[in-house]
Amino acid sequence: MSYKAPVKDLLFNIQHLAGIDQIAQLPGFEDAGLDTAQAVLEECARFNEDVIAPLNAVGDTQPSSWKDGEVTTTPGFKEAYRQYAEGGWQGLQHEPAYGGQGLPKTIGAACQEILNSANLSFALCPLLTDGAIEALVTAGSDDLKAIYLEKLVSGQWTGTMNLTEPQAGSDLALVRSRAERQPDGTYKVFGTKIFITYGEHDMAENIVHLVLARVQGAPEGVKGISLFVVPKFLVNADGALGARNDVHCVSIEHKLGIKASPTAVLQFGDGTAATDVNGTGPGAVGYLVGEENQGLKYMFIMMNAARYAVGVQGVAVSERAYQLAAAYAKERVQSRPVDGSVKGSATIIHHPDVRRMLMTMRALIEGTRATAITAAAAYDAAHKHPDAEVRAQNQAFYEFMVPLVKGYSTEISQEVTALGVQVHGGMGFIEETGAAQHYRDCKILTIYEGTTAIQANDLVGRKTARDGGNVAKAIAAQIEKTESALRAAGGEPAEAVARELGKARQAFLEVVEFMVANSAENPNAAYAGSVPYLMLAGNLVAGWNLGRALLVAKEQLAAGEDKAFLAAKITTAHFYAEHILPRTAALRDAVLHGAHSVTELPLEAF
Amino acid sequence: MSYKAPVKDLLFNIQHLAGIDQIAQLPGFEDAGLDTAQAVLEECARFNEDVIAPLNAVGDTQPSSWKDGEVTTTPGFKEAYRQYAEGGWQGLQHEPAYGGQGLPKTIGAACQEILNSANLSFALCPLLTDGAIEALVTAGSDDLKAIYLEKLVSGQWTGTMNLTEPQAGSDLALVRSRAERQPDGTYKVFGTKIFITYGEHDMAENIVHLVLARVQGAPEGVKGISLFVVPKFLVNADGALGARNDVHCVSIEHKLGIKASPTAVLQFGDGTAATDVNGTGPGAVGYLVGEENQGLKYMFIMMNAARYAVGVQGVAVSERAYQLAAAYAKERVQSRPVDGSVKGSATIIHHPDVRRMLMTMRALIEGTRATAITAAAAYDAAHKHPDAEVRAQNQAFYEFMVPLVKGYSTEISQEVTALGVQVHGGMGFIEETGAAQHYRDCKILTIYEGTTAIQANDLVGRKTARDGGNVAKAIAAQIEKTESALRAAGGEPAEAVARELGKARQAFLEVVEFMVANSAENPNAAYAGSVPYLMLAGNLVAGWNLGRALLVAKEQLAAGEDKAFLAAKITTAHFYAEHILPRTAALRDAVLHGAHSVTELPLEAF
Repeated sequence: MSYKAPVKDLLFNIQHLAGIDQIAQLPGFEDAGLDTAQAVLEECARFNEDVIAPLNAVGDTQPSSWKDGEVTTTPGFKEAYRQYAEGGWQGLQHEPAYGGQGLPKTIGAACQEILNSANLSFALCPLLTDGAIEALVTAGSDDLKAIYLEKLVSGQWTGTMNLTEPQAGSDLALVRSRAERQPDGTYKVFGTKIFITYGEHDMAENIVHLVLARVQGAPEGVKGISLFVVPKFLVNADGALGARNDVHCVSIEHKLGIKASPTAVLQFGDGTAATDVNGTGPGAVGYLVGEENQGLKYMFIMMNAARYAVGVQGVAVSERAYQLAAAYAKERVQSRPVDGSVKGSATIIHHPDVRRMLMTMRALIEGTRATAITAAAAYDAAHKHPDAEVRAQNQAFYEFMVPLVKGYSTEISQEVTALGVQVHGGMGFIEETGAAQHYRDCKILTIYEGTTAIQANDLVGRKTARDGGNVAKAIAAQIEKTESALRAAGGEPAEAVARELGKARQAFLEVVEFMVANSAENPNAAYAGSVPYLMLAGNLVAGWNLGRALLVAKEQLAAGEDKAFLAAKITTAHFYAEHILPRTAALRDAVLHGAHSVTELPLEAF
Repeated sequence: MSYKAPVKDLLFNIQHLAGIDQIAQLPGFEDAGLDTAQAVLEECARFNEDVIAPLNAVGDTQPSSWKDGEVTTTPGFKEAYRQYAEGGWQGLQHEPAYGGQGLPKTIGAACQEILNSANLSFALCPLLTDGAIEALVTAGSDDLKAIYLEKLVSGQWTGTMNLTEPQAGSDLALVRSRAERQPDGTYKVFGTKIFITYGEHDMAENIVHLVLARVQGAPEGVKGISLFVVPKFLVNADGALGARNDVHCVSIEHKLGIKASPTAVLQFGDGTAATDVNGTGPGAVGYLVGEENQGLKYMFIMMNAARYAVGVQGVAVSERAYQLAAAYAKERVQSRPVDGSVKGSATIIHHPDVRRMLMTMRALIEGTRATAITAAAAYDAAHKHPDAEVRAQNQAFYEFMVPLVKGYSTEISQEVTALGVQVHGGMGFIEETGAAQHYRDCKILTIYEGTTAIQANDLVGRKTARDGGNVAKAIAAQIEKTESALRAAGGEPAEAVARELGKARQAFLEVVEFMVANSAENPNAAYAGSVPYLMLAGNLVAGWNLGRALLVAKEQLAAGEDKAFLAAKITTAHFYAEHILPRTAALRDAVLHGAHSVTELPLEAF
């Protein structure tokens, strides 16, 4: 079953919810109006539908493989990546100064969704490169920028994030990799990194590893972590590739999903091969990014870009699973509809429970998509708006959204892909059907770049408690305005959405108060409820954005435009309000009931 | 990580919630008291922990394989099955007349859970044999009983259920396999069956297929389906194995999970091999079970036994996933607890969100286990109680429970196993960790033996609407009594459980009214809410049973018994009430909001 990019819905979001016209008024985005968005998305759709999407199943059955330190990617990936780079897709959102196209994130995010729907495993390579670029743009020296940025932005080289070590996952305080200062100002890096996505592969000439390590004498914990560029091949003064660096891929993992994406164990300075790349003894040659001991700050630049992008992956894999399930439901004939609307056996989409599953998938996808693209618009305003106060407001909004985009979109991808299997019945359990791949692939999304709990802790601590819940309450106030507009618009769907949004918003505000009151005084109570809070907030914001979409659709319908699409938008918002928003009550209760029954059991009882 | 059977919790359920003392007063169960239960469970635990459980991961990496029509099961399975049969485990619940031990289902269900926790794939073979035995006991002729039952009960031969065909899954009206009457009273069966669990394997001498097919001239639809015994090898008059029958395994499936369990495509009467097994031309020799055209009724006997058993599989795989996750959480060191209770990094079980995940898993497991064992007790009373009215009441209760045991326990297994992966963080995504296998394995449980929607339709139609909601309301009345008892017992946990049970019960009653009012008049509205209704009812009943457990635990604690275990029981019930029962409100809303937004979109909008 081939993938068809939802260009129409993406453009609806870009135009009406993200407000591309306003974005095109920001300095630097003058050419990035709706026409540009449409042209870019259509080209993006064509390329991904034709070139990248067909490789998705191939990657599952013929994963990337390791031999003698080399990784051979899935057949077809190398050539597809060449086309990806040549098409300029890597540079879409990056600065023209480095060869990028400088488009807004609002458009870039839509392209990211399409790429990830086409092929989650493939898309990870550019995703990591984006993070490396952001870190270098923000914190790299002019020399590093000159040497690396253009090649990364063009896609000629790729980037990685090297954080995790066997004993240091979420807890970067435990990082042990070390870096030794060299007389020439470079460093020698030693250590083992695990879970390095595209840490080794054959799709690009060079791989630019961004690596967390401790300089000798650095403080313990996260305050003693520095960030280094460690290229696979050193780069000569003329920009040509030089010696092979002392970083080697020891193995790749055997994973539940995203099997085409090689997950590498990297050994820096293993002393067994190419140990003396520049005549100064063993160790991987590394170049400090920014200042010593500030590595965590820089890493968060990459991480935050990546967190948002992983959220988009959640939307993307859900969309792909939905398309597969909807197609099957329209084709598979089985049983008579309960309402007698068809004599004899009908396609299963006639059965109310199949419809419920498809509507649930669809509503969750459209809701999380709207949240992601709306957040991207805030990012663009936060970076480009001439008014500092507007920038700050948008930045605060965006930062509040990141854990929701990452956490909620990826959690719902687990539900959506499971429903995707379920719609297929027994066929869903057969690997050749393809539904199971999405169910397997998506399971990493709630884990990497910070688990849902890590996102939720960020939401509770930095995004809610730190400002006394101000940003949260400001968002609730915006939601309340949407409720008023919905009531004013009238009609059953709009009124239902207003009613359910109101209940969910109240639940949200109760939880915000709880978090503000408890996060310092009674941290267990707050953090035992952090994930329910995240799920509540993500659910509410998605519902809100669908409410906004409903308002637009209603207005345009009245103007006689694109009837079927707009009517479906209204029904989907209505469904979301009636069937998904009510979940917020249970999430509120779970938070407000507190931590007692969560944490009471002694450890030995488990 | 090795599996440890939860014998103590199972016995607690058997003793206090199922009331084994009353069961031991039923005719035929005189020897089946608590001592017997304990002895059987301990032996069952030992056997499964030592012999069956270690083969679970092996089966995932070395699935059963097909070559030239023969299936070779996972290394170790054949020998383990020999021990299983020799240990008499297949006959546990079956009648002594056929060599069984005649133990109550209450005990048998606990053993089933242990076997399935040890190895879902392995356990499927006995599970299907159980179904074949039940069908033959109920509907087989004396001849068929004499020839097959003892061998099946001893485990010497195994059984299968042959329902599904490529075009006929949930919709058995579409079955096309045909049976031709032979002059000697036998039939020749022709057709293709798919998804036949253990349809071919090397663990037993013979395989007894129970096959749905149409006799020539039979009515269309489900009224023309007959049930046949089609043995892999014909059985001579002296009981020895005779000619190879004309049923052949064409292939086995490549599945998401339960990979050791061979899922066969069977060709009956393919005419390419052994086509003339008894000198009467091609076709598989089959023996009619009961009467012609009554096949569906008999098949439901097998199916109902299997549905209950699949529900137990849901509990079982959840328990296994929980044990793995809890062990990891107590071992993996990462980050400092938010409450400062440990200086420096601690095992992750100290983090409130990890605790929330483990408590969620635990509460769902203990709740669904309690429901399953309580239902088993009703089954025992329904079959053995001397008073017809008591039998009828228990039968009605059991029948109401079956879709909940099947539907809710398997749906929650998806949540529990996903949490199991999540607790492991990045390691959860690595196949060698083992958490991912449970996540993959469990996905079939909501599908086979009737999807969750099929269970839910059964709950709405046959179990709720047909009697005007009487059984449902009788259960609600029982729950209300438990609430009173909890309030009388007092203390925060008991009061919280009473309060949340009360809310959930009200939600349940509203939904029952809705179903009774709508299932005939407005079937789309009812059936669009069938799965939410099932999830609500399953959630409520599990919470109720944990409330009953809390009452027992409180009483025994006061008597100074087994403090840690009983205190944990109370906390788990408390957690369930505060964090799981509130989900019922959203489920009620989803039902009561009705089908409009579920079914409004035109087909072409999907």
